[in-house]
Amino acid sequence: MMTSYTAPQRDMLFVLNHLAGLEAVSQLPGLEDATPDMAAAILDEAAKFAAGVLAPINASGDLQGCRWDNGVVTPADGFADAYASFCETGWNAMPAQPEFGGQGLPSLVSSAVQEMWKSANMAFALCPMLTLGAVNAIAEHASDELKAVYLPKMVSGEWTGTMNLTEPNAGSDLAAVRSRAVPAGDGSYRISGTKIFITWGEHDMAENIVHLVLARLPDAPEGVKGISLFIVPKYLVNADGSLGARNDLVCASIEHKLGIHASPTAVMVFGENDGAIGYLVGEPHKGLAYMFTMMNHARLNVGMEGVAISERAFQQALAYAKDRVQGKPMGDSSGQTRPILYHPDVRRMLMDMKSRIEAMRALAYQTAAHMDYAHHHPDEAVRREHQARVELLTPVVKGWCTETSINVTSTGIQVHGGMGFIEETGAAQHFRDARITTIYEGTTAIQANDLIGRKVAREGGSSLAVLLADIDATREQLLASGNAQLSAIGAALARGAGALAEARDWLLAHYASQPAQAAAGAVAFLKLTGVVAGGWMMARAAQVATQLLADGDSDTVFLNAKLATARYYADQVLPEAALYAAQITQGAASALALDEEGF
Amino acid sequence: MMTSYTAPQRDMLFVLNHLAGLEAVSQLPGLEDATPDMAAAILDEAAKFAAGVLAPINASGDLQGCRWDNGVVTPADGFADAYASFCETGWNAMPAQPEFGGQGLPSLVSSAVQEMWKSANMAFALCPMLTLGAVNAIAEHASDELKAVYLPKMVSGEWTGTMNLTEPNAGSDLAAVRSRAVPAGDGSYRISGTKIFITWGEHDMAENIVHLVLARLPDAPEGVKGISLFIVPKYLVNADGSLGARNDLVCASIEHKLGIHASPTAVMVFGENDGAIGYLVGEPHKGLAYMFTMMNHARLNVGMEGVAISERAFQQALAYAKDRVQGKPMGDSSGQTRPILYHPDVRRMLMDMKSRIEAMRALAYQTAAHMDYAHHHPDEAVRREHQARVELLTPVVKGWCTETSINVTSTGIQVHGGMGFIEETGAAQHFRDARITTIYEGTTAIQANDLIGRKVAREGGSSLAVLLADIDATREQLLASGNAQLSAIGAALARGAGALAEARDWLLAHYASQPAQAAAGAVAFLKLTGVVAGGWMMARAAQVATQLLADGDSDTVFLNAKLATARYYADQVLPEAALYAAQITQGAASALALDEEGF
Repeated sequence: MMTSYTAPQRDMLFVLNHLAGLEAVSQLPGLEDATPDMAAAILDEAAKFAAGVLAPINASGDLQGCRWDNGVVTPADGFADAYASFCETGWNAMPAQPEFGGQGLPSLVSSAVQEMWKSANMAFALCPMLTLGAVNAIAEHASDELKAVYLPKMVSGEWTGTMNLTEPNAGSDLAAVRSRAVPAGDGSYRISGTKIFITWGEHDMAENIVHLVLARLPDAPEGVKGISLFIVPKYLVNADGSLGARNDLVCASIEHKLGIHASPTAVMVFGENDGAIGYLVGEPHKGLAYMFTMMNHARLNVGMEGVAISERAFQQALAYAKDRVQGKPMGDSSGQTRPILYHPDVRRMLMDMKSRIEAMRALAYQTAAHMDYAHHHPDEAVRREHQARVELLTPVVKGWCTETSINVTSTGIQVHGGMGFIEETGAAQHFRDARITTIYEGTTAIQANDLIGRKVAREGGSSLAVLLADIDATREQLLASGNAQLSAIGAALARGAGALAEARDWLLAHYASQPAQAAAGAVAFLKLTGVVAGGWMMARAAQVATQLLADGDSDTVFLNAKLATARYYADQVLPEAALYAAQITQGAASALALDEEGF
Repeated sequence: MMTSYTAPQRDMLFVLNHLAGLEAVSQLPGLEDATPDMAAAILDEAAKFAAGVLAPINASGDLQGCRWDNGVVTPADGFADAYASFCETGWNAMPAQPEFGGQGLPSLVSSAVQEMWKSANMAFALCPMLTLGAVNAIAEHASDELKAVYLPKMVSGEWTGTMNLTEPNAGSDLAAVRSRAVPAGDGSYRISGTKIFITWGEHDMAENIVHLVLARLPDAPEGVKGISLFIVPKYLVNADGSLGARNDLVCASIEHKLGIHASPTAVMVFGENDGAIGYLVGEPHKGLAYMFTMMNHARLNVGMEGVAISERAFQQALAYAKDRVQGKPMGDSSGQTRPILYHPDVRRMLMDMKSRIEAMRALAYQTAAHMDYAHHHPDEAVRREHQARVELLTPVVKGWCTETSINVTSTGIQVHGGMGFIEETGAAQHFRDARITTIYEGTTAIQANDLIGRKVAREGGSSLAVLLADIDATREQLLASGNAQLSAIGAALARGAGALAEARDWLLAHYASQPAQAAAGAVAFLKLTGVVAGGWMMARAAQVATQLLADGDSDTVFLNAKLATARYYADQVLPEAALYAAQITQGAASALALDEEGF
């Protein structure tokens, strides 16, 4: 029983309005159009597009995959039409800056919209996601001339964008990039090299594809400080903006993957003949920093994929659990055969999925709201504060939401029993699709090393201290509330935050002296931060729900469910914090005890 | 880089000889041939067959799958030849009783051999595993006449066996079985009904397929007490043992599944015309009990699949991590680019896989040794003791080893980075194959309910108390050892066992009064029991390794690795026990707080 997708607008608006503070965000300079009413209207339209256009081709796209034939890649049936419609309706332009034809929506609102695309059709959504990343990198770092040529077409979606980092011998280690760029004497460069794992690297849904490529200039220093960033279009662009000759680049093959079958993952070969013509973005040797502009954005986006694919799996599992009548639930006094939703373990699984999704969504949207402040607040000090929170939470949202999505989509299969293993049911696709999210845009270990190194140890834990202080303020309110439910949630949050503080202390004390042990505990530290920050979001949700109920809000079923879900998270998920803290603070000597010979 | 399979004979023999006590097992009446030397020789031959015949067709079988054409199922290329060779070499007969042509090996030894088949080719191994289950059910419950007709051919492998339980409207709930059996007046019955998810339900690798089918007689009471078990052969058997007419049963289709593609999962339709001719096994209405004979065996076997597929994923990941040179590991003083095995998080992941596999393997083999005592010990009281341990541990081995295998095979993908998501690498297949193991032969929730209900609460926790006393004895030895490594492991084991005792106390106090809450904590209880029992095995392994080192055993790298792996388990895995105990003892009220409307 394959289910359709219905955007969880009520949940999304709850986070937008009550947790992440859309009202305040929409008062920031430049974001004034994004009132809560406008946001609700946008979500409404996006929900229709996601359900009506993107979701229906998700399973068929998975089954059919993409076709490669002599360098030409044909997406699955319906994808080109859906993409055309996506661009015509203006969805591609929505998150981009107004000066290039975008609508300049807050990241907060755009996060909710993008969650919908990813839930409805993760493989499809990767294409505009990559384009948007390329747009951001060009907008921030390229010359006005390059911006004028490329941005309008990319914002409209007539041209799509890609990110070309990985090479066969340089996976996560960009220091090993070997692609070369030689000045052609006319201001352009000749690019050569092979790039792998290029998402939507080739297709025929758009007129042109704008590849952003990392390569080395002849005089480049070794390592990551010698990498430059180039625009390398599939078709060259004439002075009048029309398309010229085909550039010297080709898609040599596409991969046969575990999931996201409808998203072509290309091997791109540049410059097999005379060299692909490319244009330097910004200054030489600064490509890595520029690429990080794209990547930080992409990391949050991949974290959002974790949220989105979990939500899709949850909807599928919930529908099945309501529909499938079987057996008499343990402890059920009716004596009747009932929907499996009423079996205790199925109900636990659904609650577990639901509460983790709500925590992840709130944390991801909240991070997007911090981005809006970091970009739009008039006061530089305030911008810096929010930017610090964004930097702290980006690896957490990326790593924790994606790791969690593997478990949530696996639980989605389990709810179905045997039917979950049958591909036609649809649950398995979400599990397969989710499995890439902990890998691309930096594996969980890379996120975790970024977190413990650049984001915590390097600054002596100051950003994390601010986060912990914010959490503590909420805890105090909860414990002072006189409400048993909120107090219990506050006590659980206190234990979680205590575990995080303990692990942080260990990390700060050992990062310099025992870097390998610190790194061996890094993934646990990332999960710990995610579980506790997510618990904070859930605690705030419980506060808000309690207040709204006290104010006489009529949506009592929804608000009581928010409270129940937060309580579940406090009782059943937050205790993970102590486990992760134990794993970190016991040091990882035993994790590193064996060398090659010992294995 | 797809890797071959090498049976971990040294690890297997360590468990056989030093943990599960093969020497003593081989002194039980009827098992005298299975000396440690003989067992080592058998493992050696099995390792060659697994690596040389079964492993090479694992990936190709996954890619090709099975073909259904008008009721005829053709397995993937090479499977029929491999099966013929498997039977000719006598492997199919090995675990069966000597009186029907088997070799009557101890379950302990046969466990190791079966781990090899499952690691090498899980889809293939399902076929003889199902046959063996059917052989056991027939041997224990059928008449001598039926035994004489069916067992010799099934033991040799000329005929294969299946288990037909599930129906489209009766998944895990066998009370809802609707297939019918009508007496034909000649002692046989006419069977009709549709069965789904029938593993190796149709194929052409064997001359005949012997279906064991659950169905209801006309006078059957409702529910599970009205189910009878029938032998329904694909081809009828003439009085002289030759094959007669095709029976009235057909494979209507096979499923398109997430994994185990080379194992045909059939929809079987019985009696569309005159009724399929079937023969009653044992007495009427006792089919469920007979089926449990098969199922308990199958459950241990599926638990072993969890061990085996994890081992295969580990070998794949380890080979990649040794081969793939990339980046400078954090905290590495060499300053060199090194194999990714030396990156702290990769090393942690490999250690995590290794230690969990060793704990699972030891627990599964130990359970098999208890089966040998339960079947062969001359003293009935001793047999009963061991049988109680088998019953306690069967759902744990099934549920915990399979749940763990999903995580371990997922980690196997993660070690590969982007290459893990590419199907040709091979890591993804293990992840897909593993995903069925928590579902078939009873989902994890069904195992967990069996554990907390029949195996713990119903008997007031007496079997579990014996297990905890055994664990406590080991703990005492460890703490009294005067060895820092062993003492640390002992302390961790004590904390784990304490958590299990605490959860057990909660369960016994609440099982009757709050059955739904108990059931909502059942899966956590199962994992808790697995983690602690596995920790006990690891602690014993550490004791043995320390003793052997003290005795001057020359295999110091191997034995020191055993110690290091046990220490990792104590530091990093056993702390999970406190998490599970917290989840259980906080009650599951919050897990059950939402009804249909609230979701």
